[in-house]
Amino acid sequence: MSNTRGKETGILLVAQVICIALFGLFVDYDASLAPNANSTQHAAELELSNNLYPLFQDVHVMMLIGFGFLMTFLKRHGFGSVGFNFLLTAYVIEWSTLVNGWFALIGSGSKIFLTTRSLLEADFAVATVLISFGAVLGVSSPVQLTIMATLEVVFYNINIYVGVVKLGALDVGGSIFIHLFGAYFGLAVARVLYKKGQTDHEKEGSVYHSDIFAMIGTLFLWLYWPSFNAGPVEGADRHRAIINTVLSLAACTVTTFAISTATDKNGKLDMVHVQNATLAGGVAMGASADLVVHPFGALLIGTAAGILSTLGYRYLQPLLQRTIKLHDTCGVHNLHGMPGILGAVASGITWAILNTSHNGRSGATQGGYQIAAMTVGLALALAGGTLTGFLLKLPVWDNLTTDELYDDDVFWECQEDESLTQYTLTQCQDTIEDKDVETPADGSEAAAK
Amino acid sequence: MSNTRGKETGILLVAQVICIALFGLFVDYDASLAPNANSTQHAAELELSNNLYPLFQDVHVMMLIGFGFLMTFLKRHGFGSVGFNFLLTAYVIEWSTLVNGWFALIGSGSKIFLTTRSLLEADFAVATVLISFGAVLGVSSPVQLTIMATLEVVFYNINIYVGVVKLGALDVGGSIFIHLFGAYFGLAVARVLYKKGQTDHEKEGSVYHSDIFAMIGTLFLWLYWPSFNAGPVEGADRHRAIINTVLSLAACTVTTFAISTATDKNGKLDMVHVQNATLAGGVAMGASADLVVHPFGALLIGTAAGILSTLGYRYLQPLLQRTIKLHDTCGVHNLHGMPGILGAVASGITWAILNTSHNGRSGATQGGYQIAAMTVGLALALAGGTLTGFLLKLPVWDNLTTDELYDDDVFWECQEDESLTQYTLTQCQDTIEDKDVETPADGSEAAAK
Amino acid sequence: MSNTRGKETGILLVAQVICIALFGLFVDYDASLAPNANSTQHAAELELSNNLYPLFQDVHVMMLIGFGFLMTFLKRHGFGSVGFNFLLTAYVIEWSTLVNGWFALIGSGSKIFLTTRSLLEADFAVATVLISFGAVLGVSSPVQLTIMATLEVVFYNINIYVGVVKLGALDVGGSIFIHLFGAYFGLAVARVLYKKGQTDHEKEGSVYHSDIFAMIGTLFLWLYWPSFNAGPVEGADRHRAIINTVLSLAACTVTTFAISTATDKNGKLDMVHVQNATLAGGVAMGASADLVVHPFGALLIGTAAGILSTLGYRYLQPLLQRTIKLHDTCGVHNLHGMPGILGAVASGITWAILNTSHNGRSGATQGGYQIAAMTVGLALALAGGTLTGFLLKLPVWDNLTTDELYDDDVFWECQEDESLTQYTLTQCQDTIEDKDVETPADGSEAAAK
Repeated sequence: MSNTRGKETGILLVAQVICIALFGLFVDYDASLAPNANSTQHAAELELSNNLYPLFQDVHVMMLIGFGFLMTFLKRHGFGSVGFNFLLTAYVIEWSTLVNGWFALIGSGSKIFLTTRSLLEADFAVATVLISFGAVLGVSSPVQLTIMATLEVVFYNINIYVGVVKLGALDVGGSIFIHLFGAYFGLAVARVLYKKGQTDHEKEGSVYHSDIFAMIGTLFLWLYWPSFNAGPVEGADRHRAIINTVLSLAACTVTTFAISTATDKNGKLDMVHVQNATLAGGVAMGASADLVVHPFGALLIGTAAGILSTLGYRYLQPLLQRTIKLHDTCGVHNLHGMPGILGAVASGITWAILNTSHNGRSGATQGGYQIAAMTVGLALALAGGTLTGFLLKLPVWDNLTTDELYDDDVFWECQEDESLTQYTLTQCQDTIEDKDVETPADGSEAAAK
Repeated sequence: MSNTRGKETGILLVAQVICIALFGLFVDYDASLAPNANSTQHAAELELSNNLYPLFQDVHVMMLIGFGFLMTFLKRHGFGSVGFNFLLTAYVIEWSTLVNGWFALIGSGSKIFLTTRSLLEADFAVATVLISFGAVLGVSSPVQLTIMATLEVVFYNINIYVGVVKLGALDVGGSIFIHLFGAYFGLAVARVLYKKGQTDHEKEGSVYHSDIFAMIGTLFLWLYWPSFNAGPVEGADRHRAIINTVLSLAACTVTTFAISTATDKNGKLDMVHVQNATLAGGVAMGASADLVVHPFGALLIGTAAGILSTLGYRYLQPLLQRTIKLHDTCGVHNLHGMPGILGAVASGITWAILNTSHNGRSGATQGGYQIAAMTVGLALALAGGTLTGFLLKLPVWDNLTTDELYDDDVFWECQEDESLTQYTLTQCQDTIEDKDVETPADGSEAAAK
Repeated sequence: MSNTRGKETGILLVAQVICIALFGLFVDYDASLAPNANSTQHAAELELSNNLYPLFQDVHVMMLIGFGFLMTFLKRHGFGSVGFNFLLTAYVIEWSTLVNGWFALIGSGSKIFLTTRSLLEADFAVATVLISFGAVLGVSSPVQLTIMATLEVVFYNINIYVGVVKLGALDVGGSIFIHLFGAYFGLAVARVLYKKGQTDHEKEGSVYHSDIFAMIGTLFLWLYWPSFNAGPVEGADRHRAIINTVLSLAACTVTTFAISTATDKNGKLDMVHVQNATLAGGVAMGASADLVVHPFGALLIGTAAGILSTLGYRYLQPLLQRTIKLHDTCGVHNLHGMPGILGAVASGITWAILNTSHNGRSGATQGGYQIAAMTVGLALALAGGTLTGFLLKLPVWDNLTTDELYDDDVFWECQEDESLTQYTLTQCQDTIEDKDVETPADGSEAAAK
């Protein structure tokens, strides 16, 4: 890969200038944030912001620490995992504020007015992009990732427009619109970018310490997930979503440990499962988080998600790699893809069972629309991802060579040489010197005697 | 130890199925979480949930990141520390929701109704189990830990029933019912499980990086502790508990640094003290957190806790190991046990001094009941822990052999061979090759000449 | 350096005893935290505390995890970075509660009454001290740091008294009173303490893993920064401050990545920039966080901060080191110093442009006072820091020798010998033994044949 300095800098600076200009033209604070906003309505809106802010911050932790550290499991890609995750989060907060806002303006209004809720919605777009990032982790350049994010945010909003506005699907926790969409969009990109030698690459895989770093990400995602699923709703719905998500995640975690050890030839646990499959309960709970699934229903959904995701990591992922050359670095298909489908189906079934009418629709009908939105989302994700993948493959973006995969040295100044390794090596050489002195085995010396 | 795959999987799956069934029979959402709950009373309850949720999340961080990473100090047990901590948290959230609920139903009601507060109370049971886990860290299998957790949650509730319901002790931060109980329960289990060669084991102890990982746990426990001590109360009591706990922890930390360097032969600081004794101020403040101890009183309690805990780590722990074969991997006796007793005594004294009457009792009388509850808790913890220990010792649970202690390789697939170590080793061998080429010292070559 | 055990212990214990005594004399809970406080006014104050507490906890995370881990980038100073950061935080919470309180009493009252807001203000003093700590990281003893903190908290309050009370400057996020002041105070101390051989020291610099530890600090600082800038204000102002800070940080991060790669000879990214310059947007936004800068204005400020800070790390810092012997371990001049000035100027310009009158002043006049306060702050920081520096240089405090810089072994019991290094080394020696056996090259053996 030739030096991409110019391209990366150029794209980021141009994006930044454009964002500033467009924010100037289209974005301002909501009326409730005006300096002297004190009408009753504004007071109520501020109260909502006050209640929402702690949940937004929980979600913010999930984006930066959660996704960022979960991806540091790669032994030689820690900088790129946490670093590009950081860059994408920052960039998508800006870009999605514009695109989310424009789509919300369709048919009404001309200016985007920001509240704390806008920040939460920006983070939801960020989450979708970061899920896709997981599918191409270590095999794409920051330039390619920036372009992918730019396009994905648009497709993401198209999908929401069709699924929510037109089909009227309900998905508080984003099983369909965030997890399923982000996963299949990223998988499509990954498939198109697939290159020979990418699988069983010596630099892929983890080391002891990198697996512990990854657990920081896993645990923060796990424990703040209730805020992710409950943030968009209020009052009783919010607290039901919180309880359902906590229970679903707990059940998913217990199940993951059980299945992981059961399916290993030595009966040992696999950190990949503990780091990832334990979170599937949050994904699958998303679309029904605020519904009256009852506590045992939440446990059922979490249990099913844990089984599905762990088996996916153990058996399906290697199979897809061998058969259709689908290399999924973080296994987003097992953590977000299939559990997203499970979540959509679970919400459809729940609507049908509860059969509470909604917007003049029977529960059964609403259940049907949930499945319809899932199908549309799947199609749009695969189409958008494939399109994006081919665009990213253009030679102009300097595709990575096989040698450059999963390696921080390509994009980061690394001091590894000065590290413990070098230190040990030096000591090791000293040892060798000493050894020779102690036991002289030198032919010439022998001759000298 | 023979392969425990079957047993671990079996126990976890059976537990999961039982939990789902019992949740279906006994557990539902509180009326205030009903879809259209909008009576004034429900609004008030939702307001309480809104105010409590951020504190619950702080406590949730303490369970998963705090306890989980604090225990990663062991050089070869990082997966087991953070992993089994994760498993126990998830499982106990489910199990304690049932047991806590049943005990609350004694004498009234037949169904358990969940609110955000139920989640906080589940986390308190989790904390108790994780404290006990610290006493047997690295010397017990996940099967044994799961059984221990199952029994401990029951003993924990019996103790609360006796101490709170019957004796009327007050312990907002759980000095007695969480820390003291969890510590002595775990210590009793540890004593029973003690095996030769467990002490001064080559795999016990930390390395440079693992000590820094542990600090992640310490700091999150320290900074969110005010939420732990203040969560159960509301309004002015809550904010007094927050201020008291922040001050107690600050005083404890300053004192710990002072005592740690003072008691070291080289005047150096010990990371074990900084990682653990600094937290004793939160433990000791627990039972009087919401009382009017005044800010200087909080500083006094924290200072005493720091001295007690640091001296415990420095002198008492090795003594107990030598004399009564009590091996306490994380030193929970110094962090939770003794500071828990200190907290109980401090609350008794505070009640006596303030002498404000409570439920028709004089302050002095209430102080006496605080000590009574402490004594009962101590007895119940030791009895319950001993009983549990002997149960865990049954050969059927595949006790760990001495070789298998403090070692992730026993329960986890570890890639250490591919790690930095191997990498360095390879380079090191190359160096040796090169060396020989550069300076041929081969006798035969010499002969050839 | 001679053994400082006695001095460190003595200073900390004396400080602790004095704090307890002074708290007893001067500090108590606010009336709104009285057990039965239920007047309307108290209810309103409690509501404010309820809303503020989650933001306080975010700021608390920034102090302990944010600053603490950001400084662990040094390869052999992880214990000292996170450990002394912890000690200083705890000590300054106690000490600044007194000093902040006394200054607030000037002209009125005789007792300090604590609320949740007092805790937030204590953390602001902590932040100022920790920024200064960054300038002398690895080159100062805990005794010196404790003395520095003691004095700095006083100068910090003098500066606030002059700048806020007398000049009426407004600085919600502390661009001037926290960041600018803390940075230049620390830089003055660092300059005075400068010693030969401090620069290009073999133990300075990072390794692969320590750079990833540092990212934990960076990301928690970044994502909770909105709470830091918004905590002191309420209602609409708070939420405007949140939105402005999120946008400024996002813009700063995108810009930092662009400039970092653009200015590297190989077009690679520098972790130092990603760890630090990405945060400058929070610093620069501080003084205008609650103003109506409009979203595009926040992006502009963040973009400028990212450029300024990254260029500072790349070009100015090495220049200052060579020319004026200013060694700034964490580069606080680039992260807090210059962006602090930028923030002050930005607030001045904003006031002039918006030209909204405040306390009978025109916007333009207020803008002038912002610059005036910045100038006073700069002068006071440099004067106070220089004075403090010379005090710390007194031989009695056992200055560190050049060999002792950036090294945990000086103040901490380190088990490095038992670590991976040793383990590898042993294996390495075994390899050498084996080698000799396989291919005997011993002269004498040859002779024996």
